[in-house]
Amino acid sequence: MRAARYHDRNDIRIEDVPEPPVQPGTVAIDVGWCGICGTDLHEFLEGPIFIPPSGCPHPISGESAPVVIGHEFSGTITALGEGVTDLTVGENVVVEPYIVGEDVDTGPGEAYQLSKDMNFIGLGGRGGGLAEKIVVERRWVHPIGDIPLDQAALIEPLSVGHHAYVRSGARTGDVAVIGGAGPIGLLTAAVLKAEGLTVYISELSEARKQMARSTGVADDVLDPRDGDVAERIRELTGGRGADVGFECSSVPVVLDMLLDAVRPGAVIVNVSIWGHKPEVDMPKLVLKEIDLRGTIGYSNDHPATIALVQSGKIDLAPFITGRIGLDGLVSEGYDQLINNNEHHVKIIVDPRA
Amino acid sequence: MRAARYHDRNDIRIEDVPEPPVQPGTVAIDVGWCGICGTDLHEFLEGPIFIPPSGCPHPISGESAPVVIGHEFSGTITALGEGVTDLTVGENVVVEPYIVGEDVDTGPGEAYQLSKDMNFIGLGGRGGGLAEKIVVERRWVHPIGDIPLDQAALIEPLSVGHHAYVRSGARTGDVAVIGGAGPIGLLTAAVLKAEGLTVYISELSEARKQMARSTGVADDVLDPRDGDVAERIRELTGGRGADVGFECSSVPVVLDMLLDAVRPGAVIVNVSIWGHKPEVDMPKLVLKEIDLRGTIGYSNDHPATIALVQSGKIDLAPFITGRIGLDGLVSEGYDQLINNNEHHVKIIVDPRA
Repeated sequence: MRAARYHDRNDIRIEDVPEPPVQPGTVAIDVGWCGICGTDLHEFLEGPIFIPPSGCPHPISGESAPVVIGHEFSGTITALGEGVTDLTVGENVVVEPYIVGEDVDTGPGEAYQLSKDMNFIGLGGRGGGLAEKIVVERRWVHPIGDIPLDQAALIEPLSVGHHAYVRSGARTGDVAVIGGAGPIGLLTAAVLKAEGLTVYISELSEARKQMARSTGVADDVLDPRDGDVAERIRELTGGRGADVGFECSSVPVVLDMLLDAVRPGAVIVNVSIWGHKPEVDMPKLVLKEIDLRGTIGYSNDHPATIALVQSGKIDLAPFITGRIGLDGLVSEGYDQLINNNEHHVKIIVDPRA
Repeated sequence: MRAARYHDRNDIRIEDVPEPPVQPGTVAIDVGWCGICGTDLHEFLEGPIFIPPSGCPHPISGESAPVVIGHEFSGTITALGEGVTDLTVGENVVVEPYIVGEDVDTGPGEAYQLSKDMNFIGLGGRGGGLAEKIVVERRWVHPIGDIPLDQAALIEPLSVGHHAYVRSGARTGDVAVIGGAGPIGLLTAAVLKAEGLTVYISELSEARKQMARSTGVADDVLDPRDGDVAERIRELTGGRGADVGFECSSVPVVLDMLLDAVRPGAVIVNVSIWGHKPEVDMPKLVLKEIDLRGTIGYSNDHPATIALVQSGKIDLAPFITGRIGLDGLVSEGYDQLINNNEHHVKIIVDPRA
């Protein structure tokens, strides 16, 4: 079968690889669509980061580069391994792409995303979504009912937003301020809006502001060039400030703005990935008793995320800004996301095209 | 009566001022002992900070410098204002020294320490503990039973430690790591130990390490010069890391150490006051899903704090490292705490001596 494999930085190849065998307890899936993630771009430009370099096998998967990539994908079940009785061949599914140790409890309430040596299918081994087929342990397969396969490729990043929402402890009726309308900012906003929050987004880019408006995920989009965002959030909330903040930009002044824009006793969830140690306005965090919370991946978020899409509360279609085949992965996919980043949310790949 | 009044930076005077009148709903107190706080030193060296400067009255108290100072004090009730029926003349008490707006709810669970324009008795007006007498609204007066008045002067900073403990969500049996064994680090440790936690303290100063050991508030005191503290915390916890961390040093490398030393999913409470915006290891906060929480003052913490001392679980006597009279406030008190800081925890002042 054809697959995109990461060999090293700047070296991704479309190759013929053997089809993975169906084992007991696993599910064989024909991939429908696979999204390109910011993490994939980081691996391409600056990696390997999550990907175990050639000769350094991952302690759980035992694999190292070259590995099949792609972790945001949907597909259709083609075969069930021995013992898998609660799924059906022909059913559409998405994969929660974790690689965790065998002794890790992945039950309700368990923080398996924080387990030792955690990695991701499509980065740390065990196949990936940028291939025609994949075989995955039953635990990580989630049925999606009648959600179209193209939109379903976005359930993985939407689950990141859902987990950020859960981490925030936000409730219906709360006011949220999001710093940054990149893919994760927008998808986090979509979850918050679906959960009944009032959502304000701060963003500089015209294209991203436009996207935040056209997708309807924001009650208002504020441009820092039009005046102090925190001040305007206070005006919009009767002087009070937002109940929750979400840092989705990795920009220090945005984190500072959030610390200013939230009310005393508020929670700020950091959803972005930082490449350095930023200066943080700790005096404000202290005097306002703010909780600054990290969030990574998802943890039993997929069922609730899928339900939000199935219920119609979230429409993922507007977030798909490009569709390409596997051969165009770098030339049409990565290049667009690197050089024309502001105009894209999610480019999805059909590994059979 | 005699009182220490703050006129301006480097200008504190021992003066004769009128005795405050007893009003309905208030309690008249003869001050027993009043501690000197790091905040007092900051006001003296770098202020006015909390203290409203001359000509700029505080929006709630209506007062400005000169103001009577001192907010860590105990005393004996000498008179009760009209309507105060649940206290007795002759009873020993401490004061929770808040100045908050009249419309602020100070009931159970209310975060009145975060209310608009909050300030402190002994900084923002309404008298202070560095005077022979003070009159305080009933709400802020807490009976202390048979706790000696000298030790009771430490209940205010101990309540800061108690509030930090409450903010952490720590439970009996948890492992805590505290960065810094200054007064607040030690008193926070005392609360944690009394609440049944295992407590490790990281500290460089020989004198402070000695104090942490002799007071019995730490299960172990770790010196960063003897090896990576986070690594040793992991060794002491079977590879897991501490459940909670407390930043009590305002030193960036200590905050970094805490982010390293706690387990994934842990809480770090920042108890220290930062004079600048430090670099924070946000990548670690994100990947470990750490909660970094601010804490300021106390909020309905005094009754529980007093109960810990009354029960004998906390002995405050060892933390008193100096006793002076009012005339020695600057020459014996501030000077010692500024120039011989490491050898002191708490110097207490008898305003009648």
